[in-house]
Amino acid sequence: MSHKYMKYFKLTLLAGLLFVVTFCFWSPSSSVGVNIHRRQGRLGQKLFNKKIENLTFGYPDIEYHIKDDVARSLAQNSCVCLPGEETFHIPFSNLLFPRVWAHNLQHAFLENHPDPEIVKRHRAQEYDNFQRRVYSPADMLNIAEANSPLQYPTQGVEVQPLKTILIPGLGLKQKEKSNYRVHLTATLGTFNVAATVDMVSVVGAGKKQMMLSSPLLSSLNRQLQFVTYTNAVFHPKTADSIQFATEGHQSFFTIKVGHRIVPKLYNSGHSEEYNITSLVTIATKTFLRYDKLQDLIDSIRQYYPNVTIVIADDNEHPQPVTGPHIEHYIMPFGKGWFAGRNLAVSQVTTKYVLWVDDDFIFSANTKLEKMVDILEKTTLDLVGGAVREVTGYTATYRHTISVEEGGPDGDCLHFRNGFHHVIEGYPSCVVADAVINFFMARTDKVRQVGFDPRLSRAAHLEFFVDALGSLHIGSCSDVIINHASKIILPWSKTKTQKTYEKFRYTSVGVDKNLSNEIYYFKNRFKCMTSQ
Amino acid sequence: MSHKYMKYFKLTLLAGLLFVVTFCFWSPSSSVGVNIHRRQGRLGQKLFNKKIENLTFGYPDIEYHIKDDVARSLAQNSCVCLPGEETFHIPFSNLLFPRVWAHNLQHAFLENHPDPEIVKRHRAQEYDNFQRRVYSPADMLNIAEANSPLQYPTQGVEVQPLKTILIPGLGLKQKEKSNYRVHLTATLGTFNVAATVDMVSVVGAGKKQMMLSSPLLSSLNRQLQFVTYTNAVFHPKTADSIQFATEGHQSFFTIKVGHRIVPKLYNSGHSEEYNITSLVTIATKTFLRYDKLQDLIDSIRQYYPNVTIVIADDNEHPQPVTGPHIEHYIMPFGKGWFAGRNLAVSQVTTKYVLWVDDDFIFSANTKLEKMVDILEKTTLDLVGGAVREVTGYTATYRHTISVEEGGPDGDCLHFRNGFHHVIEGYPSCVVADAVINFFMARTDKVRQVGFDPRLSRAAHLEFFVDALGSLHIGSCSDVIINHASKIILPWSKTKTQKTYEKFRYTSVGVDKNLSNEIYYFKNRFKCMTSQ
Repeated sequence: MSHKYMKYFKLTLLAGLLFVVTFCFWSPSSSVGVNIHRRQGRLGQKLFNKKIENLTFGYPDIEYHIKDDVARSLAQNSCVCLPGEETFHIPFSNLLFPRVWAHNLQHAFLENHPDPEIVKRHRAQEYDNFQRRVYSPADMLNIAEANSPLQYPTQGVEVQPLKTILIPGLGLKQKEKSNYRVHLTATLGTFNVAATVDMVSVVGAGKKQMMLSSPLLSSLNRQLQFVTYTNAVFHPKTADSIQFATEGHQSFFTIKVGHRIVPKLYNSGHSEEYNITSLVTIATKTFLRYDKLQDLIDSIRQYYPNVTIVIADDNEHPQPVTGPHIEHYIMPFGKGWFAGRNLAVSQVTTKYVLWVDDDFIFSANTKLEKMVDILEKTTLDLVGGAVREVTGYTATYRHTISVEEGGPDGDCLHFRNGFHHVIEGYPSCVVADAVINFFMARTDKVRQVGFDPRLSRAAHLEFFVDALGSLHIGSCSDVIINHASKIILPWSKTKTQKTYEKFRYTSVGVDKNLSNEIYYFKNRFKCMTSQ
Repeated sequence: MSHKYMKYFKLTLLAGLLFVVTFCFWSPSSSVGVNIHRRQGRLGQKLFNKKIENLTFGYPDIEYHIKDDVARSLAQNSCVCLPGEETFHIPFSNLLFPRVWAHNLQHAFLENHPDPEIVKRHRAQEYDNFQRRVYSPADMLNIAEANSPLQYPTQGVEVQPLKTILIPGLGLKQKEKSNYRVHLTATLGTFNVAATVDMVSVVGAGKKQMMLSSPLLSSLNRQLQFVTYTNAVFHPKTADSIQFATEGHQSFFTIKVGHRIVPKLYNSGHSEEYNITSLVTIATKTFLRYDKLQDLIDSIRQYYPNVTIVIADDNEHPQPVTGPHIEHYIMPFGKGWFAGRNLAVSQVTTKYVLWVDDDFIFSANTKLEKMVDILEKTTLDLVGGAVREVTGYTATYRHTISVEEGGPDGDCLHFRNGFHHVIEGYPSCVVADAVINFFMARTDKVRQVGFDPRLSRAAHLEFFVDALGSLHIGSCSDVIINHASKIILPWSKTKTQKTYEKFRYTSVGVDKNLSNEIYYFKNRFKCMTSQ
């Protein structure tokens, strides 16, 4: 018995050694190189493009009569840098209605530049790289052919990277034939079947091309219910183009490849009323106005004694700002406006962040609960309030923003005063694209957009341009904050006030050039119009 | 002549006044309230769901035989919190291969909580709100019916909010009939035609339902080429579900509604070689290790004398850190690790940011140009390097991360050592989901993910979990940085070193609870497995 045991032991040891040796040379992941340089099509892509072309054109001989009003609302291929059409053509319209200004960013930025051609080429190259990074086959135009015997999913099929799914909805509905056959082709993955059905032949299981055939149509369709797709080439966010074909007919659809969305949920406790202290952090930036900052803090504490206040400070000689629930951050001198804003919001640990300027004053009308309420109950990401000057004049600074396609020189950016809709259930609130600098927002969404730290002086709408398409923005006129008085007679300005104005309101030329660069290069606009 | 002129003038004035009065009462945007509370379907949705059900099931009588290996790779409905299956079942496997640990986050976080049921309900409520915010009809499963005479676009149709487009690819391919008729129905917009074709009747132009009919099929198809869709209900990012039907057949497709993507391009100048100073900013956080920080700075300056270094500092008694191109930020005492990281990256103005710890040392092998090269030429967003200890041991800390669906209690998060693929053209580089704390990344992409400022002490993989699906991550073993020695004999530790260790390595209980909360509540996982 001991001899048998010894023999078994030796065998096990040998097997173990063999496994170790195999393991050392076998990597747990594919060692085949993955090409992540380009996303160009191949022959399949050309075939696909030809098919789309054939399906969208045709009937050149049949006459048509253009409907001007509708045709005019269609986007032009390339926007022109002119003030938008005025909807009213009457005398004195310029006096009665705000005029629209057009600013040719391309000229403004390039005319002062030593090497305009190089800048244009650099921008085009950067944009080209950007497009290749964001390209997804799931965004390409695809058309379902009529009278095709193929049934297939057109959207909603998703797989996690390197995982496997059943493909839903595949089918063949053909008239009586002696043999029924379908082909499946993928680029970034392989096919297989989770179960087999009698009388159906499966060729190419585990490969990028698989063929199923059967003399019985219902058996083939039953088999199609078990077709699986396995993503084989890793990418965290892409799509595979699948071809599903039978004799004489091809169909294309995409399978999205990506991780499950991991949410960012905030644990703010649960109570009947809104606990502002656990839900909201107030953020501001300060420069040369410690007195106004202290007035702001004192006014906040009257209504919200425990809410956290985050202060970004880029003074040359910072002074301490103390008190409970105050977080004071010192920046290098003069880093600037948007750098300070980006810093302050980067430190917020609550679900919502309230932005205020350091010369605002809370009043009894500054009910943060109203802002929390609309953010809790709707799909808004950001809601602006109203800022009241000492004169009584109250501003919400609501704007709409739209982008018009402009061709290789860049797009056209349009700002207009106003809003899109009133919000049902909130009669004082509307939906817009930009609001005033007093707003509450979802912290994670605002951080996703960010405040460009290059914008050191005057800047406001740049944030909302970066937010286009990401943030759902609202504005409520019934949440009001006061603005510390700006009426100062010239001879009574303090030294500090003069220094502040010098920093903020001069360097206009430099600011303008930076603003032009941001819009022209970073955001790739050639033109900007506004009222 | 004067009399005629006066009459004309009076008429114009009257017209002008009338227009002003009209304008005052006419808002430039719709005053119809928009409901942004829910995204539930209506009758159309129910019809649609029934159709999908009919198309995906059927043939219950036909037998099938499960293929175990494939069926096993399909996701379960609800992940179980156990160590993953071992791929090797041999004796002594536990000794030879790293073991997988499972951590039940739900138990760990809730067992110490005074009100576990309330927390579970709060998390479920927050997740529900989150899902309603990210829901898009464009993600729902849709299936193209076979043998339908309808031709229509299945993907790639996009319109900007409140704008108009031509719908591509609509068609009817039917046998001879006396009259051909199609219906179009939308929810968030209206239809029209950009041109009219003789012999085609259009009913409902400008409305949410439009009908086209004609005795001539080719004329109807010509007319279909001019159908337009106008988005009428503002939302910055959504999709409209369109029904396109004829007698006996319905098809559904989505039109995505959203702004044009506004890029964020960096103007870093153009030169033959990579200008590291204009392309890269080095970011770090420091605490109680000013000596090590100075060693880091000195080592950087040997190779990159002009690159900007951003330092986030949360010491209790901050000391000045000076020198050209150094930006030193002072934080409230002990704010912590990820707050400091988030601050530092929030201040970067270059295209790329290089993260280093304050006790790293640059060497001749720390070639930032290699990292820039792979980021410039591929779709990677972040590339990690290798950290070399004094012993010579070099680590890349490559991990893969996957998420398994888990039902209402949350998903399961899996960390494994290793990578996905080698990168073609870069033999020392691979694709992974997490890397070591020495990496270069696209500034705007890293900021979009962010470092959660609540994580004050030990944290690393949390960033990569938040980055899942957003960042394309690589790791190159040939870009090496040195790690300052950690070999300190206990009796030779300085007071500062002891204080540092006290801060970093104690409070383990508190850290663990915070980590559990982040994974359990914020990211909604019920279980975590790792090696």
